Amino acid sequence: MASDHALNPTSQSLTQDPVAAEPIDPSSAKREILHNLLQEAASFNLSNTSSLLYHAYTSLPHSSPSHHVNWAGFYTLDPTSPHTSPSLILGPFQGRTACQTIAFNRGVCGTAAAKKRTVRVHDVHEFPGHIACDERSRSEIVVPILRHWKVVAIIDIDCAEVGGFDEVDEEYLGRLSNLLSKSCDWAS
Amino acid sequence: MASDHALNPTSQSLTQDPVAAEPIDPSSAKREILHNLLQEAASFNLSNTSSLLYHAYTSLPHSSPSHHVNWAGFYTLDPTSPHTSPSLILGPFQGRTACQTIAFNRGVCGTAAAKKRTVRVHDVHEFPGHIACDERSRSEIVVPILRHWKVVAIIDIDCAEVGGFDEVDEEYLGRLSNLLSKSCDWAS
Repeated sequence: MASDHALNPTSQSLTQDPVAAEPIDPSSAKREILHNLLQEAASFNLSNTSSLLYHAYTSLPHSSPSHHVNWAGFYTLDPTSPHTSPSLILGPFQGRTACQTIAFNRGVCGTAAAKKRTVRVHDVHEFPGHIACDERSRSEIVVPILRHWKVVAIIDIDCAEVGGFDEVDEEYLGRLSNLLSKSCDWAS
Repeated sequence: MASDHALNPTSQSLTQDPVAAEPIDPSSAKREILHNLLQEAASFNLSNTSSLLYHAYTSLPHSSPSHHVNWAGFYTLDPTSPHTSPSLILGPFQGRTACQTIAFNRGVCGTAAAKKRTVRVHDVHEFPGHIACDERSRSEIVVPILRHWKVVAIIDIDCAEVGGFDEVDEEYLGRLSNLLSKSCDWAS
């Protein structure tokens, strides 16, 4: 993971410049925290990684909308669902109880799974077909995990504030997705 | 689950007696909350049940030591571990990151799994071989889930106060264990 440092120069100044007196840039703080998360997640399963994610986000400065993450976890491909009508089943997470199964194409999670791409929603109330598992959730990001071009799971994170996620989350959660695709045992 | 009501007369008075003015008995509050949890858990998988458990305990009155639960979840039998040397693997939970694998006989979890019985620890510092995943944990209860007399998983709950669990927890978590033994799909 040494290459992460080259991609993440801002995090160096946060920890190495003793004379830096200005307030912490929330975006830089997020990069540093998500960078550290990637290091730790390399040896963790989905259960531990859901805890890492939740506590990473909620440890962000209060000035960051992402601080208000209220749900973080995974859905995995339901191996009993028909190939022609696949669905996701609730996996490890941190937060309040959630929908236990979600069909591909349904809501934000199902859309990301069906389209095999990250879906970032600024305001869930404006997303057609949004599934309201927790009414406190106001924004959401869902990143599919692919193995051999097949969706095996999704990363799902909800935030209690509108606009909780940006391109930094897309970048780091995309890298987490790639990592988990390789480090976890997925049913073939 | 109708028979639960017969076993739980104290919960009736909490909700049905409008003239009850004395403070809520923590033990009665716990019975009512765990009774409701059993109803909901009947249709939930382990991921949702870990959330039910955590939020049930932390919703108890502050006067109950169990209010200070800081970790609630499951370990499941690691199907790749040798039959002669079985181990548990971290499953869904709520709380800080935890030990990812635990050998049978090791710590509170491994002892409960090896002995196939509930282990309730008043003060983890006095339990020989206790595994300190989270240093805030001061007491713990572990209840094995058996399927055909074989341990398939354990329920593990930690509390940040000494003496967080009593015979009420043993009773209701034992019933949860029986429920999950039947309601979940366990690898044979």
